[in-house]
Amino acid sequence: MDPTIDELLPFLLRRENVARYEDGAVLIGDRRKYPWEKVFVRCTDVESVACAIEDMVTQGGGPSIAAWYAMVLAAREAENRPPTQRLSHLKKAQARLVDTRPTNTALARRLERALAVLEQALADGQSLPETLLAWIEQQRDRTYDDYAATARYGASLMADGDGILTMCFAETAFLLSLGLAAREGKRLRVFTPETRPYLQGARLTAPSVHELGIPVQIIGDNMPAFVLSQGKIQKYFTAADLITLDGHVVNKIGTFQNAITAHYHGVPYFAFCWGLDPNRPDRASIVVEERDPAELRTCRGQLTTIPEIDAYYPAFDITPPHLVAGIITKAGIFSPYDLKDHTELF
Amino acid sequence: MDPTIDELLPFLLRRENVARYEDGAVLIGDRRKYPWEKVFVRCTDVESVACAIEDMVTQGGGPSIAAWYAMVLAAREAENRPPTQRLSHLKKAQARLVDTRPTNTALARRLERALAVLEQALADGQSLPETLLAWIEQQRDRTYDDYAATARYGASLMADGDGILTMCFAETAFLLSLGLAAREGKRLRVFTPETRPYLQGARLTAPSVHELGIPVQIIGDNMPAFVLSQGKIQKYFTAADLITLDGHVVNKIGTFQNAITAHYHGVPYFAFCWGLDPNRPDRASIVVEERDPAELRTCRGQLTTIPEIDAYYPAFDITPPHLVAGIITKAGIFSPYDLKDHTELF
Repeated sequence: MDPTIDELLPFLLRRENVARYEDGAVLIGDRRKYPWEKVFVRCTDVESVACAIEDMVTQGGGPSIAAWYAMVLAAREAENRPPTQRLSHLKKAQARLVDTRPTNTALARRLERALAVLEQALADGQSLPETLLAWIEQQRDRTYDDYAATARYGASLMADGDGILTMCFAETAFLLSLGLAAREGKRLRVFTPETRPYLQGARLTAPSVHELGIPVQIIGDNMPAFVLSQGKIQKYFTAADLITLDGHVVNKIGTFQNAITAHYHGVPYFAFCWGLDPNRPDRASIVVEERDPAELRTCRGQLTTIPEIDAYYPAFDITPPHLVAGIITKAGIFSPYDLKDHTELF
Repeated sequence: MDPTIDELLPFLLRRENVARYEDGAVLIGDRRKYPWEKVFVRCTDVESVACAIEDMVTQGGGPSIAAWYAMVLAAREAENRPPTQRLSHLKKAQARLVDTRPTNTALARRLERALAVLEQALADGQSLPETLLAWIEQQRDRTYDDYAATARYGASLMADGDGILTMCFAETAFLLSLGLAAREGKRLRVFTPETRPYLQGARLTAPSVHELGIPVQIIGDNMPAFVLSQGKIQKYFTAADLITLDGHVVNKIGTFQNAITAHYHGVPYFAFCWGLDPNRPDRASIVVEERDPAELRTCRGQLTTIPEIDAYYPAFDITPPHLVAGIITKAGIFSPYDLKDHTELF
């Protein structure tokens, strides 16, 4: 892997700041307090890691890493129990962690793999925590290698002088693409809609881009089309919570309308992809999560209207493939109409 | 005029709640505190009315009405002065009030008309405050007649079962259109984007529509396209700060991107028009006001990011005529391509 990758990442996305294991505790970077405070939630048992995940201390790729390290805590406890109780103790911990994100099948699948590693260590009579820790570090480094491969394709799409629109917090692949492009001497300018109601654009993306030394401006979620009409934006990039096999991009609400207005202004839209789920063939296979309307009636704890007013809060939207210029993966930049045959992404 | 018009209006838009004259004082409805409080700022001299306008106590049609009533206060003071000083006292008051909105030529023109009325009363030896008060009431009632005429055209465009998208606070013509349509038995449902950073959609539009008994939901400024894709919206209506003679609609930022995404989904966009300015022939004659970026870094006083992050805040945008299905005026619903010959709107 590229040893300088970590230097190109902002605080929030460095591997040790997402979550790490230290002296019998899991430290989780607290994204709820960022950018005002750079602090960690310290957890010394599985239950407190589970609660931290449920309380949205971390998000994106964070919960999986935190949950893996929680299994190290469980492995330490298991070694102090009679041999016959060890596996059931580990399984109980796994079940509790899976419960934190009932709809996130990726977390469940990753915990299953961690349990398999522990079962093998049990059978082989190896140290449970040491074996698991080594495996986690290896997995995490492999993930960062994939980020780097993806980001090299992302950076190749960014040209000197580009104004770049994004949405929400596109995380490591996007930030690393910017960092790589800037290292190549490309001058970029980023526009980040604030992303109501949680303000990921204002709180996470803008400070992270700023930290890389790349000019960034927050705009309102109601402003991308006008900024596009001014000719200030040449490319639009987002992450994707899910991409269907037929090329529909599911991402934070607002991604779709930016894609429409980018297309209207002749600006291409690219989505970063972390893998494809063979169980999500098309738009019909997606259920868009609707969250509590009350979340839309506040902004950082302040009411934005009176409580008796109703609100509607779909958390994600779906961008059809004809608005997507390319899907950026670790294996290349693909057409959204050509995903189902790329089984290396399954 | 239709005597029941006032009953169809929500609290915020009733003529006595915008601004009124009472016992030697001007009472101005405080839109900064609405919807949490329904209170008035009480002003007993011209200076305090001017400060209230500068402090954004009222907006839209409010500043003109408040400034007219401030001239009644000035007229009362003038009558206590020697006859030779009366006109200069009135002119000084007028100048102070014009200064409150240096770019709002409508306010300056309206104050000029009020001064002409006072000069005539001086020449005729009539009571200055009584003459002006009678004239203001007449002008105000005529404006509400125009609102009603416009709203009848607006209501005619609303069909039973329609989902209606709006933006910012489209004020009297829009609310009255909804009220008239509902009185005719049409079942409507309104979606109002919150309109960052000042939240006019959440604070003013949603409570006003709710007060009419019409179902309304706040959505994020990032959500209109997705709600359109769900088939929940059949029409899109906004006010217009300005419409050029060649049909470009200038309105609160976000209006344009909603018009693009409405057009993408086959949903027509209609703008309410209060008159045309012969000095604004086309897009090139418009300068979009850019406001202090700091305003975008807060929401009701709460910071949304760290202060060192830059922001960009264009306050208005421009929707080209090919995205506008019709301009709703007191004289009818016109094509945006057919405005320059409607001199009755100049």
